[in-house]
Amino acid sequence: MTTLLKTLKEILGPQGWNCDPEELRPHTTEWRGVYEGRTPLLARPATVDQVAAVVRACADAGVAIVPQGGNTSMCGGAIPDATGEQIILSLSRMNRVLDVDAANFSITVEAGCVLADAQEAATVAGQYLPLSLGAEGSCQIGGNIATNAGGLNVGRYGTARALVLGLEVVLADGTVMNSLRSLRKDTAGYDLKQLFIGSEGTLGIITAATLRLFPDPGQLATALVGIENAGVAVDILASLKTALDDRIESFELVSQRVFGLVERHIPDATLPFTEEYPWYLLIETATGSTPQLLEDALATEIERERILDAVIAKNSKEAEALWRLRHSISEAERQDGKALKHDVSVPLSKMQQFLQRGDELLARLRPDLRLIAFGHVGDGNLHYNVGLPRDLTEEEWATEGARITRAIYDLVAELGGSFSAEHGVGQSKRAWLAEYRGGAELELMQLLKKTLDPANILNPGKVI
Amino acid sequence: MTTLLKTLKEILGPQGWNCDPEELRPHTTEWRGVYEGRTPLLARPATVDQVAAVVRACADAGVAIVPQGGNTSMCGGAIPDATGEQIILSLSRMNRVLDVDAANFSITVEAGCVLADAQEAATVAGQYLPLSLGAEGSCQIGGNIATNAGGLNVGRYGTARALVLGLEVVLADGTVMNSLRSLRKDTAGYDLKQLFIGSEGTLGIITAATLRLFPDPGQLATALVGIENAGVAVDILASLKTALDDRIESFELVSQRVFGLVERHIPDATLPFTEEYPWYLLIETATGSTPQLLEDALATEIERERILDAVIAKNSKEAEALWRLRHSISEAERQDGKALKHDVSVPLSKMQQFLQRGDELLARLRPDLRLIAFGHVGDGNLHYNVGLPRDLTEEEWATEGARITRAIYDLVAELGGSFSAEHGVGQSKRAWLAEYRGGAELELMQLLKKTLDPANILNPGKVI
Repeated sequence: MTTLLKTLKEILGPQGWNCDPEELRPHTTEWRGVYEGRTPLLARPATVDQVAAVVRACADAGVAIVPQGGNTSMCGGAIPDATGEQIILSLSRMNRVLDVDAANFSITVEAGCVLADAQEAATVAGQYLPLSLGAEGSCQIGGNIATNAGGLNVGRYGTARALVLGLEVVLADGTVMNSLRSLRKDTAGYDLKQLFIGSEGTLGIITAATLRLFPDPGQLATALVGIENAGVAVDILASLKTALDDRIESFELVSQRVFGLVERHIPDATLPFTEEYPWYLLIETATGSTPQLLEDALATEIERERILDAVIAKNSKEAEALWRLRHSISEAERQDGKALKHDVSVPLSKMQQFLQRGDELLARLRPDLRLIAFGHVGDGNLHYNVGLPRDLTEEEWATEGARITRAIYDLVAELGGSFSAEHGVGQSKRAWLAEYRGGAELELMQLLKKTLDPANILNPGKVI
Repeated sequence: MTTLLKTLKEILGPQGWNCDPEELRPHTTEWRGVYEGRTPLLARPATVDQVAAVVRACADAGVAIVPQGGNTSMCGGAIPDATGEQIILSLSRMNRVLDVDAANFSITVEAGCVLADAQEAATVAGQYLPLSLGAEGSCQIGGNIATNAGGLNVGRYGTARALVLGLEVVLADGTVMNSLRSLRKDTAGYDLKQLFIGSEGTLGIITAATLRLFPDPGQLATALVGIENAGVAVDILASLKTALDDRIESFELVSQRVFGLVERHIPDATLPFTEEYPWYLLIETATGSTPQLLEDALATEIERERILDAVIAKNSKEAEALWRLRHSISEAERQDGKALKHDVSVPLSKMQQFLQRGDELLARLRPDLRLIAFGHVGDGNLHYNVGLPRDLTEEEWATEGARITRAIYDLVAELGGSFSAEHGVGQSKRAWLAEYRGGAELELMQLLKKTLDPANILNPGKVI
């Protein structure tokens, strides 16, 4: 290890590494504090050639590398293990926007570019990078792609995968694979970049990407509506998709209990209704040349008695206030105390059944559970979190947690869903992968891992 | 081989195979007649279990399999070689629509389902399957996915890849991998289906798929406009994308020479203009609730002098007449005689440069070449075909053809483009793959092929 560290320091130069455990704490600790690891060295390469040299040196020494972007993983995907023998490779110095090609509706960035900076570069060019998620001020494009990030507008624009036109990747032996093309159509052989999207740094290290841009969606209309149940949400979505020419930017479902937490814990956060409703939808659409479209569509849904009440933001300040309610959920949840997190998806047609059967299931498991459900229902994605009684011991928490999580994932699987919709697998869900994607799928995943990273040096212990 | 054939016949039953060379001609000959092969047996399995059993039997015997859908490949991708030792596996009996899940905006079909039948099933459910291409009346979904088909509306909806939510695939050892999920968000491990999309049956045999559906785009507006050059086309595209809220369904570029061929060879095909223009755009947009949007947007472009003249279809009959001009190009080309076909893509921002430098290049190569250029310019995809003098000998054709094609592909590569935009590689472009995607990319493709199909029995001699 001593020889390797010396080599790495030479490759990286004085600005390019850090070995101080104290200074490295933000890199060795998960942002929520759930995972903590150790590392002998944080590599901070400035160029793809340095990344390649670091990987080659580590491969020669048989030392593992944990690639790290903004360290905003929800599953411990970017944290080294406790051995203190895994190098962290941070992409954060490689944070440049390399090119905005407005005529091609594309942007090329280094992997360490913060998502918000890439969004801003697109905006400056009069265009729009749709990827949008809570962590956008600190997460990095490389991490977004490595985890196939979802977020708020997948229904219209797809996940990160749908935005990637090209990638530059460093393979496990230090080879640089430059597939940084910016083409919408390309059938010249296997589409290799797909391998690295969503593989959480276990098959290669993404160093740069070219992403699709879209025309600025222009005027947005934002509404908060109260509804009776989540099944209605799916019907409303189908109607609005047609009525609004498929230009629904966001379609978020939040339970009364969740907004109750927000009102309780977040200063000045108040729902704009006098009554309470069991569920709420936060809907945002691009209205383009026809600003009244959303209002008309909602009026129809009120006539049909699918919507109980609706508030449309009259200006961007009001829209921001509505979004603040949504964006405050994580913080309100955090203040409310520990909960079991489940980031699940089901087919939209199964959403209502999932929620109904989930209610029954939780009641059966324990009468004292608190369901904290919200999410991107437009994509079939729910954050289906469960609060346990606060007086449980740590041990009871672990046992009960495992039992409840398994029951929820079983239900999700039965309905054709996924136990990981947008947060990936990381460290925390590896066991579930074997359980719910076992057989031919898991075998092929293992085969790919073994083929692309035979010495298991790329983010070992993650995903697979 | 005799033993294998006996086994296959037992697996497939009397309806499931054919060994008559005469009856098999439509399966052993490419539709244009460019490729011809031989086979001892055409397997026509009716179920995925039969596909798996056939693959296992062939794997045991070390005999290769050529998967075949509608046999509409432009690159000989579905034709066996001349040895007469490759089994053809036709998916055409597996042609059922298994499920239309309207609430989930998805459809599940067997691989042999003809594209038009899947489109129709979506329409019946009041929804829309956007994949659309010339061969849609005979091509099959399995082939569309295996070649990552593009077509007419990639700009808005993406290629076949973007539509695939789930796949069922038979691997090279006969294992059935069921990933037939219908989720919009799923980060549970590697996204294995991506491997098989666009790999032309060389890594696995697709037996069923779940595809995204969209709301019916409703009222369409269709226009044909005359323009000065292709650079203007890209500017117009950018303007219209914004003006029309990104709802451009098709954006096709056709040169005067190409429409000249159509007017000459196709009965009753006449352009609706009194004057000739160097280039034409065929534009179709979903206008939803605002039918006048396209007219307004085109008027603006005429004021800006980027559009020289425009005709907007007043009804669906007029729209069909405009599309008939576009859809007659292949037939007009065929009647005009042999030409070098190039299915290339470049970044949109390089389109004008490509066409300008292409003109210069062709003039330099031979003054007597005829450029036949048209394509899906909204996706940067051009069919850049070149007619050679009709009096060349076959040998001169071959030599000159290779020289001209290489020069064009070199230019495409220099501009960051692809020598295969939407037609795949098949047999005809294998050598170019090695040339233009050599190095790390080709090596990784070869590694994948060797890993997933170590005995090289899946569509050998294709792609790689």
